[in-house]
Amino acid sequence: MAQEFDVLVIGGGPAGYVAAIRAAQLGLKTACCESNPYADPKGQPRLGGTCLNVGCIPSKALLHSSELFDHANHAFIMHGIKAEGVEIDVPSMIRRKDNIVTQLVSGIKGLFKKYKVTFLAGHGSFVADADGMWKMKVGDGEVIAKHVIIATGSSARHLSGIPVDNVQIVDNEGALQIDAVPKRLGVIGAGVIGLEMGSVWKRLGSEVTILEALPDFLAAADQAVAKEAWKVFTNKQGLKIYLGVQIKEVTTSPAGVSVKFEDDNGEQLLECDKLVVAVGRVPNTDGLNAQAVGLQFDQRGHVEVDGHCSTNLRNVWAVGDVVRGPMLAHKGMEEGVMVAECIAGQAGHVNYDAIPWVIYTHPEIAWVGKTEQELKAAGIPFKQGQIPFLANGRALGQGDTTGFVKVLAHAETDQILGAHIIGTNASELIGEAVLAIEFGASSEDIARTSHAHPTLSEVMHEAALAVDKRSLHF
Amino acid sequence: MAQEFDVLVIGGGPAGYVAAIRAAQLGLKTACCESNPYADPKGQPRLGGTCLNVGCIPSKALLHSSELFDHANHAFIMHGIKAEGVEIDVPSMIRRKDNIVTQLVSGIKGLFKKYKVTFLAGHGSFVADADGMWKMKVGDGEVIAKHVIIATGSSARHLSGIPVDNVQIVDNEGALQIDAVPKRLGVIGAGVIGLEMGSVWKRLGSEVTILEALPDFLAAADQAVAKEAWKVFTNKQGLKIYLGVQIKEVTTSPAGVSVKFEDDNGEQLLECDKLVVAVGRVPNTDGLNAQAVGLQFDQRGHVEVDGHCSTNLRNVWAVGDVVRGPMLAHKGMEEGVMVAECIAGQAGHVNYDAIPWVIYTHPEIAWVGKTEQELKAAGIPFKQGQIPFLANGRALGQGDTTGFVKVLAHAETDQILGAHIIGTNASELIGEAVLAIEFGASSEDIARTSHAHPTLSEVMHEAALAVDKRSLHF
Repeated sequence: MAQEFDVLVIGGGPAGYVAAIRAAQLGLKTACCESNPYADPKGQPRLGGTCLNVGCIPSKALLHSSELFDHANHAFIMHGIKAEGVEIDVPSMIRRKDNIVTQLVSGIKGLFKKYKVTFLAGHGSFVADADGMWKMKVGDGEVIAKHVIIATGSSARHLSGIPVDNVQIVDNEGALQIDAVPKRLGVIGAGVIGLEMGSVWKRLGSEVTILEALPDFLAAADQAVAKEAWKVFTNKQGLKIYLGVQIKEVTTSPAGVSVKFEDDNGEQLLECDKLVVAVGRVPNTDGLNAQAVGLQFDQRGHVEVDGHCSTNLRNVWAVGDVVRGPMLAHKGMEEGVMVAECIAGQAGHVNYDAIPWVIYTHPEIAWVGKTEQELKAAGIPFKQGQIPFLANGRALGQGDTTGFVKVLAHAETDQILGAHIIGTNASELIGEAVLAIEFGASSEDIARTSHAHPTLSEVMHEAALAVDKRSLHF
Repeated sequence: MAQEFDVLVIGGGPAGYVAAIRAAQLGLKTACCESNPYADPKGQPRLGGTCLNVGCIPSKALLHSSELFDHANHAFIMHGIKAEGVEIDVPSMIRRKDNIVTQLVSGIKGLFKKYKVTFLAGHGSFVADADGMWKMKVGDGEVIAKHVIIATGSSARHLSGIPVDNVQIVDNEGALQIDAVPKRLGVIGAGVIGLEMGSVWKRLGSEVTILEALPDFLAAADQAVAKEAWKVFTNKQGLKIYLGVQIKEVTTSPAGVSVKFEDDNGEQLLECDKLVVAVGRVPNTDGLNAQAVGLQFDQRGHVEVDGHCSTNLRNVWAVGDVVRGPMLAHKGMEEGVMVAECIAGQAGHVNYDAIPWVIYTHPEIAWVGKTEQELKAAGIPFKQGQIPFLANGRALGQGDTTGFVKVLAHAETDQILGAHIIGTNASELIGEAVLAIEFGASSEDIARTSHAHPTLSEVMHEAALAVDKRSLHF
């Protein structure tokens, strides 16, 4: 006989497992199914999704390791620290990363136990509407659920003619398993993943070349940030980045990968030892058996949802990468909480205007709200304050003064419309700005708030002061 | 003929120079005088005060250098990074620190030029009330000012019988100029400065012993934080800390410093190569010629002021360490801004309930608002949420999972009353909590705010969720 649940969540990534935990906390009998083993040594389905297994978490582990290595090679000298024979043992670095992933995966298993979420190992799909309940297939079994939350996530987009074997040509998964520093690393796509992976291997000694189809660098970021990032990545760090690139042909041989491409300078050839393909991600909807129940998709292939992540089907919801909006783990988690609360009869809500973005390069890049170009395009009058980290004592103390904070506020109301950071620790500094936007704060609100000295957060303070042309340290 | 100003600021530290800049921005003809050369090679008076010259900034520079050294010795191995012959060249480390200080000092000079603040090199003191103006002495000259802002700061408290020569027995100034790693470092005082300096030299290889008069460790901090800090500093890092200590006798010889002290275990002897005396600071009021004009002091020797930093004398104000309240640079800066705005007829204001505290040990300690013991003593009903960094992916990625975030909220209104962090990056993470308190936020406000994944700030998010017993990752 089929198991019955109040809620079945399809997919154990950040949006899914959080939805499941929140639903269970609210007293709903909840199951969450997952079929992807990722890199599990025994091939068992693993919780955590792309983010935990082959995305945010392992990449941050490698970024941190490679940053320490970079310190040893470039920063130590100015601190008077001597070290010889600095070398990286890549397999150890990868093993550490794998251990972190394993630890966090088992953490989620523990949370499921604690909050009484039933984990079902197996692929979930729709069978039929059954008397107001949903009959679902999970692995080889059947489940009856009152509510279904689709949280199937996304997969790396692959390009025709560029066969990803995750050995010579890798996507995000293979890029995290490279076992020796490639002499020459090619990357297709100068987005978040391309820049993060390019940074890791550049620091470890690779010659890195990134090919980007778009003519603009970091088009989604505020263009002042993008310009600064370009300067730092190319001039200071030596990443080679080509924009407006059209890939013509990719061939592999035992000697490496050859990429023929064309840009404004005509046809060119990139020869590399490994090639990372990071050209975006596509929602995972194939295995849902959607047509059997009439689930609707939008034009870009996402499950179509309203502002509360409700689909066209009664009691069927969808959250995370599989729906519209940025493919960010924390956006998916917020949606997971919202949907669980809506199912429980509460007033779940996500403020899509206060979702931060982060790129974990060095310097880090983070923002929330609107960019200057978006405000201009929308004809919204604004003021701005921009302060460099160069004027900050903590940044000097850390020997890391690249970048700035830029605050955009409405010209008449002074309400903060966007905050943009490029600089060390941007990922953590953006938190204050997110809360400010959540509160509808004015730039004066931040300007009148005490900021601990000496901290990097003082640059946020000064940028807010600068909106009103009264910065104190610049 | 005496120069005339709308505002004369006595003292060029953070409270003073900020007051001067803000006053000048508001159109007031402003001067700022300073006589202390600190470590200026030419003996010229230097802007920046204790904080910049011999306090927060140089200590943070040394903390950062020593932390990198510590990474090389203890963290590299788990990342697969090999390095041999790791050594610290202390003079280079000190030189870097000095260069940072010099750069920031000249930055303030530049700000004075930019905002048209007149810098007067010389000691400032009262002469007399002169027809509604203040006749002041600055160095050998005379100045007439409508408003006077006293920002003379504080000095290290010295103990009778413990002669600070800043060679063998040092205060905060000498502790920043030690030119080789002492084999055995003694520290009197387990406050912020004692712990920070102890951490620097412990990391660099000293055997560090700290003697504290109080029976409680970090009595001002939330006691859960203090307990965790004690565990980390003593067990993990090997700082030897004695509490409830009474110093009996300190003697020096060419061989070093001997400290006889008594604690619960009777009389003991500490022998060390250098001794840091860090037993608090006293307000600098001696040179003001206060009695000539009848300036009032409080019982603890501070210039007496009201909530707006107004003294008992018309148009005489006092800000920063010389007045009541915590001796924190950013508290002084906020007071400087407030007073300048009050002088200009604006509604200057400091929210003393939203001033953060930071201790830059590792892990860092930071808090804002009330501690649990304060709430209990005041009989205020509260809820709490406490989440360890151990459950956080970013902390794991950084290999640094010590500590926790603890959020205290009112039991009935849910308003956040305090936030307490011990953990890596606490100094920056506290910013969000300060803003929350400034807004009178509830724990639910933070709980419903998106936090970028993976960041350490998610621990603040989870702690806020935990107040309502609905943390998602713990």
